[in-house]
Amino acid sequence: MITQVSPAGSMDLLSQLEVEQLKNTATSELYQLYRNCSLAVLNSGSHTDNSKELLDKYKNFDINVMRRERGIKLELVNPPEHAFVDGQIITGIQEHLFSVLRDIVYVNMQLQSGPNADNSDTTYLTNLVFAILRNAGALIPGLTPNLVVCWGGHSINEIEYQYTREVGNELGLRKLNVCTGCGPGAMEGPMKGAAIGHAKQRYADQRYIGLTEPSIIAAEPPNPIVNELIIMPDIEKRLEAFVRLGHGIIIFPGGPGTAEELLYILGIMMHPDNSEQPLPIILTGPKESEAYFRSIDQFVGDTLGQDAQKLYKIVIGDPAEAARIMKKSMPMVRQHRKDMEDAYSFNWSLKIAPEFQMPFEPTHENMANLDLHLNQAPQELAANLRRAFSGIVAGNVKSEGIAEIEQHGPFEIHGEPSLMKKMDTLLKDFVAQNRMKLPGGSAYEPCYKIVQ
Amino acid sequence: MITQVSPAGSMDLLSQLEVEQLKNTATSELYQLYRNCSLAVLNSGSHTDNSKELLDKYKNFDINVMRRERGIKLELVNPPEHAFVDGQIITGIQEHLFSVLRDIVYVNMQLQSGPNADNSDTTYLTNLVFAILRNAGALIPGLTPNLVVCWGGHSINEIEYQYTREVGNELGLRKLNVCTGCGPGAMEGPMKGAAIGHAKQRYADQRYIGLTEPSIIAAEPPNPIVNELIIMPDIEKRLEAFVRLGHGIIIFPGGPGTAEELLYILGIMMHPDNSEQPLPIILTGPKESEAYFRSIDQFVGDTLGQDAQKLYKIVIGDPAEAARIMKKSMPMVRQHRKDMEDAYSFNWSLKIAPEFQMPFEPTHENMANLDLHLNQAPQELAANLRRAFSGIVAGNVKSEGIAEIEQHGPFEIHGEPSLMKKMDTLLKDFVAQNRMKLPGGSAYEPCYKIVQ
Amino acid sequence: MITQVSPAGSMDLLSQLEVEQLKNTATSELYQLYRNCSLAVLNSGSHTDNSKELLDKYKNFDINVMRRERGIKLELVNPPEHAFVDGQIITGIQEHLFSVLRDIVYVNMQLQSGPNADNSDTTYLTNLVFAILRNAGALIPGLTPNLVVCWGGHSINEIEYQYTREVGNELGLRKLNVCTGCGPGAMEGPMKGAAIGHAKQRYADQRYIGLTEPSIIAAEPPNPIVNELIIMPDIEKRLEAFVRLGHGIIIFPGGPGTAEELLYILGIMMHPDNSEQPLPIILTGPKESEAYFRSIDQFVGDTLGQDAQKLYKIVIGDPAEAARIMKKSMPMVRQHRKDMEDAYSFNWSLKIAPEFQMPFEPTHENMANLDLHLNQAPQELAANLRRAFSGIVAGNVKSEGIAEIEQHGPFEIHGEPSLMKKMDTLLKDFVAQNRMKLPGGSAYEPCYKIVQ
Amino acid sequence: MITQVSPAGSMDLLSQLEVEQLKNTATSELYQLYRNCSLAVLNSGSHTDNSKELLDKYKNFDINVMRRERGIKLELVNPPEHAFVDGQIITGIQEHLFSVLRDIVYVNMQLQSGPNADNSDTTYLTNLVFAILRNAGALIPGLTPNLVVCWGGHSINEIEYQYTREVGNELGLRKLNVCTGCGPGAMEGPMKGAAIGHAKQRYADQRYIGLTEPSIIAAEPPNPIVNELIIMPDIEKRLEAFVRLGHGIIIFPGGPGTAEELLYILGIMMHPDNSEQPLPIILTGPKESEAYFRSIDQFVGDTLGQDAQKLYKIVIGDPAEAARIMKKSMPMVRQHRKDMEDAYSFNWSLKIAPEFQMPFEPTHENMANLDLHLNQAPQELAANLRRAFSGIVAGNVKSEGIAEIEQHGPFEIHGEPSLMKKMDTLLKDFVAQNRMKLPGGSAYEPCYKIVQ
Repeated sequence: MITQVSPAGSMDLLSQLEVEQLKNTATSELYQLYRNCSLAVLNSGSHTDNSKELLDKYKNFDINVMRRERGIKLELVNPPEHAFVDGQIITGIQEHLFSVLRDIVYVNMQLQSGPNADNSDTTYLTNLVFAILRNAGALIPGLTPNLVVCWGGHSINEIEYQYTREVGNELGLRKLNVCTGCGPGAMEGPMKGAAIGHAKQRYADQRYIGLTEPSIIAAEPPNPIVNELIIMPDIEKRLEAFVRLGHGIIIFPGGPGTAEELLYILGIMMHPDNSEQPLPIILTGPKESEAYFRSIDQFVGDTLGQDAQKLYKIVIGDPAEAARIMKKSMPMVRQHRKDMEDAYSFNWSLKIAPEFQMPFEPTHENMANLDLHLNQAPQELAANLRRAFSGIVAGNVKSEGIAEIEQHGPFEIHGEPSLMKKMDTLLKDFVAQNRMKLPGGSAYEPCYKIVQ
Repeated sequence: MITQVSPAGSMDLLSQLEVEQLKNTATSELYQLYRNCSLAVLNSGSHTDNSKELLDKYKNFDINVMRRERGIKLELVNPPEHAFVDGQIITGIQEHLFSVLRDIVYVNMQLQSGPNADNSDTTYLTNLVFAILRNAGALIPGLTPNLVVCWGGHSINEIEYQYTREVGNELGLRKLNVCTGCGPGAMEGPMKGAAIGHAKQRYADQRYIGLTEPSIIAAEPPNPIVNELIIMPDIEKRLEAFVRLGHGIIIFPGGPGTAEELLYILGIMMHPDNSEQPLPIILTGPKESEAYFRSIDQFVGDTLGQDAQKLYKIVIGDPAEAARIMKKSMPMVRQHRKDMEDAYSFNWSLKIAPEFQMPFEPTHENMANLDLHLNQAPQELAANLRRAFSGIVAGNVKSEGIAEIEQHGPFEIHGEPSLMKKMDTLLKDFVAQNRMKLPGGSAYEPCYKIVQ
Repeated sequence: MITQVSPAGSMDLLSQLEVEQLKNTATSELYQLYRNCSLAVLNSGSHTDNSKELLDKYKNFDINVMRRERGIKLELVNPPEHAFVDGQIITGIQEHLFSVLRDIVYVNMQLQSGPNADNSDTTYLTNLVFAILRNAGALIPGLTPNLVVCWGGHSINEIEYQYTREVGNELGLRKLNVCTGCGPGAMEGPMKGAAIGHAKQRYADQRYIGLTEPSIIAAEPPNPIVNELIIMPDIEKRLEAFVRLGHGIIIFPGGPGTAEELLYILGIMMHPDNSEQPLPIILTGPKESEAYFRSIDQFVGDTLGQDAQKLYKIVIGDPAEAARIMKKSMPMVRQHRKDMEDAYSFNWSLKIAPEFQMPFEPTHENMANLDLHLNQAPQELAANLRRAFSGIVAGNVKSEGIAEIEQHGPFEIHGEPSLMKKMDTLLKDFVAQNRMKLPGGSAYEPCYKIVQ
Repeated sequence: MITQVSPAGSMDLLSQLEVEQLKNTATSELYQLYRNCSLAVLNSGSHTDNSKELLDKYKNFDINVMRRERGIKLELVNPPEHAFVDGQIITGIQEHLFSVLRDIVYVNMQLQSGPNADNSDTTYLTNLVFAILRNAGALIPGLTPNLVVCWGGHSINEIEYQYTREVGNELGLRKLNVCTGCGPGAMEGPMKGAAIGHAKQRYADQRYIGLTEPSIIAAEPPNPIVNELIIMPDIEKRLEAFVRLGHGIIIFPGGPGTAEELLYILGIMMHPDNSEQPLPIILTGPKESEAYFRSIDQFVGDTLGQDAQKLYKIVIGDPAEAARIMKKSMPMVRQHRKDMEDAYSFNWSLKIAPEFQMPFEPTHENMANLDLHLNQAPQELAANLRRAFSGIVAGNVKSEGIAEIEQHGPFEIHGEPSLMKKMDTLLKDFVAQNRMKLPGGSAYEPCYKIVQ
């Protein structure tokens, strides 16, 4: 089956040179990247979180960019059927296809070749994140702070899912916008809820921003409610985009990915330069999930200390309250930006230390060498723990990570025994609560071994 | 608590004379009507279907229209709290308040006094329905047929409710719009579903039309997703508005109100003048509700005959199929309007016989005198059965009807025994399936007695 | 030549009954009215100001309203060619055609038949003017005061015309909107100028309101820049619409029509009830026209006295200053409306005495009987002088007036000799300056005789 | 006087690095470029065409880019007063200020540093022109061909100016858009005319594109009607932008700049690869200017031959006809793009030979070395003649050119005597007709010497 798709959303024209570089040639890595991301967004709503499975299933999928009189067109060969309704591609998915194209072209052709590129320069990296978001149209000058980042697991139970919807509804009723990692579960619920809340309020500037990156997009494809999809080049730039774009953060129940995100933001907020940053952070879930938050809170207290615990509030079983706290914090965020002459749409003044910016590659060696003991500055410990969880996410759902594990067996994680014990407990909880992978496949086989 | 509310939606200015007539004076019936309808829309989302209860609960509610420099303002005294989020009225409800004002003013001041008013003239009545819908901005010249009327019970179970949402989602994915009676249950589900479907398709012309009338609005207040609320003067004009506005009809499970609607449309479609009308009618519900449709179908076959049964299709457990049939019928509807030089937005050419247009007042006497036997033309039998069910709805949920029953006991319904038996069976099914009233109150006490 | 035209602008659907009444039947006066107004707007930009000539020229013009699936269509038989570009009707003119239809239908079908109609009741008349403007969409609740009414002659010289354009440009640069009588000359120049000024300011809410009435529209057809055309039923309602809609008035050089307008507004503003009304009035023109204003000013001083002269300012040769005064007055107008709780869009609180509201029919008898002497209250003298000039306008350019004069000879105007002398001087100036009629025809033949 | 100006139009945010580079430092060439272009657009509507004069007059003008919470702001120190109305900057000029910023940043920071930059590579240069236009939002995918490029003198007489307005009006009535070099005279008239024509047609997608470059912008500042201002890096890229953007070309009377443009397009269209290009070219002016076109036509016939003459049509005194020809050509342009699978918004398939793409620097040496004789391929002769006229424009109005002439005396132009004679005649005509410079200064002193 071959289908042609016209641009939707903010897609510009492409130059002859750009079209040339996207051609499917035997050796083109760029084409492979482009093709796989496109396949992922076409797979929106599918019920697997295994990237490899998806890529294997659609081996004969192909995508070609063609210049035409009204701009460009995409030719899709053997695309997943569920992206279509009665033979017509769903508009939301169509927009995502062109968001992929936009970001792939921008990052790989227009940006990367610059002479000033220096991937070890923290100023350069932040400007890069800025440039990608700006090119995607995500930095809208006029808007006052109202963007709430929602983090949480892709694999959560029905009660938790309905709760994320309720929180979304309450955010929407307060004209707050939502940004998530754009997968299913806790990344989808708040958006669907907010869509209804916004509709009740006739709120026309609704934003459902999905931030993803090539290695995760296949496992967690954006749902079509996402109306701004941005593909960041890697996990660290994606995390930086979250915290510079957002004006507040809500964390729902989740597994190791959510833990990674929590450790990331706590590590940053504990940096002395950020002590004045007014960033509201809320951990929230239904009554039934209270135990989960208590054990996370315990882990944070045990490892990073009370100062870290003070950075967030835990709200149980009260969606309106979670939304109300966010709403009330916005004027403070706004005032702080004004005082700092900082942009509403991009938090330049937030200090992100290099250990949170530099990409971490989850190889067996890197995982084994993580510096995991309690006797270090809390923000450094947070950075190292963040990497450990990041590796586990990769081993669970990312195609490269899965391949690594298949070949070399589980990652081995070493460290101070008392810390290892705490990690082990937390991870076992995640397994017991089905937070590692979507249920439905075989029983979860850990991709790591805690060496105590 | 006193709150001022500014106009939202399509509200125009009011003249000095119009404001004058809406003043709260001791004797003003118009003010009472206006106040009660306003209270009803403020009560959106409440969980009672008893009009009287609502009116009793907010006895000290008051509303005043004030002229101001930017137009008019409403002053609300002691309004229901749940219409507000953190002290701000929900915009959807705010719009509804002004829709009430618009329709009350138009029907009672601008229209009714005309010298040509003749309530027994069928041409006059149809032009009246047209004029009200036009004044409400509901007749949009440019749009091609895509409006699906959804009928069904306000009191349905969770599985049925989710099913109506699914159908709504599938309608929305096909860029079809939705018109319902704007209460809870099967009147709300399709709209919420369509809102999500439309969002996925980035469909910007979404219409969620709610048609109601003063005697039912309190029992079935519009949900705030409704973005076009229209208050017709009585039940017959509301029914006429449904069938002249809509381009197709979906009927979900429901109780006597749904039966009334089905009998109404069947009676009309069986009129010989309408034999060429291409109006798709679908009865649909989840697998679990199949028996319900079989018994309705049986009742129709037994009373109105096979010709009536041919007018609709029954679709069980397949939301996409229901939506697909609607979508496929639209070009035929469109072509027929073109051929007839009839408006897309208002079906002038549909013949509605006087017995379906003339208001029926459900007094004990009128109910007792209904002409219920099988030996009459099917469309006339349909008209009489329609009236019987209409009376039962009034006795169940409308404030005047409830008062009548409280005073004089249940309606007595007489007729040919074999027909009475069939009715009795159907009504008992409704009782058994909790379709008469929202559960939660005391056990259902029938407001009628079938006299066999 | 037969052409079909689809609706443009704010045209609604028509009901079957309304279409019926507009049918061209042998006896239909309404059809004649409708046809003639339609012909007039199609004649936009033509260079005659003689209504009769126009109507004679297009005797075989016909217009038919037809209901179609997307609303209504107009069929034009033998329309004037210059309304078309390469066979396509100019969109501005197309909108005007439907404005005519809208107002004719509203005034003659929806309004006039009301049971409360009482043409001697000043409250009723003002509510009527309000209702027509509201139905035309001219009363926009949200807008703050910025509407400048520009009056002035249809027959002015090139220097004066360029000056009106310059003033328009300066108004546009200050984001002020313009309302005129919608003919050529001083009614067109300010609009064209404002269109350029608005474009420079990217002002998107530009309004070029043209107020006309059936007896003048043929002589002074709206130019296509007019984006809101409203046909009031008669000259007095048109004048009332001007002064209740506008927030300030600029008067350019002109002939008897302009004198009528000046006397009208002075008569109203001299009413004691209006002493607090902050309505800026400016008489302005190029240096070359200074003498003109001096003689008008003299006439006002001589007849209505110094108090009348204090109501306006004369600005010579300074377009920016004229616009600046208007701009600076707007906050005062705004504040006054706020203080009075009066609408920004309609000046309810302005008192208009009955002698300015009641229609004056310019028959020979009525003209002869005008009460013209200096020994009366100034606002009454203003009212009577207004009528005298109104009659002269009719005799000059309106088809009925021209016919009257052709049949019975010039109007005879009697009165106190000293007053007659002043009038005679002023009128002779108008003749000498070519302000009576567009040049190009034969020499101007006065339609009046001052009997001293 | 210090004023702060907020962004208007399509301005994005700037990154920290970008703001840094625009700082006013002692040595910053980029700042000087930015400042001078900004000053030029602030000088819109001024009546001098001498760049040097302007720059000298506003020596103490300064501009600073500041990052603020809602994006960036500009601080203007001692800006020209006429950019303001009652102390508020005119919105059109405000947009232009930010267009300057956008293009300066894009060309000098985001583009130029790329590793693939090769200024001798014709593919690279065309992609560069494309990238600048795309970044400016000038390449709108959906639009069908309707953009008419209007060339002509900045110094034309009143009759010619009114004629250009009339042509603009006729283009606007046909819903054609206009692109010019954005100065006064023939670059302004068509835009003002089209603005009125578009208003009559309620045409909402109106485009008044001004293409300029840093060395000419001060002499020919954009008028504020221009709603898309683009600053190309040099004259050759500006010319390429004209011919790849436009779908037809109208040439009004003008001086050496207009001659340069005519020779440029004729040289391109005579390239064999362009023989199928359907580009309508019309030379048009009022009856009074007929002689002018005859002598231009003669010059083209004498130098480039009859084939060149066949490429254009001359239309005298008929604005509607000129517009009609353009309108009728658009479907052919459209079809050709479709057949070639070329973009409507950018004519990739037009062949532009290197001699028309490479920048020509008008030094005394380069001018003296021009290869001017009749014995060469016509498109090469066209290229060389183009350079000669380009040099004369520089010597007349560009600040660097004027400085060169002041220092070294007039350019000397050598060549084949018969050709020199023809040039001399043409140039003398330009002088006699006041087409060299705006009148008002001292008598025109030629900046060249034809050496025969």
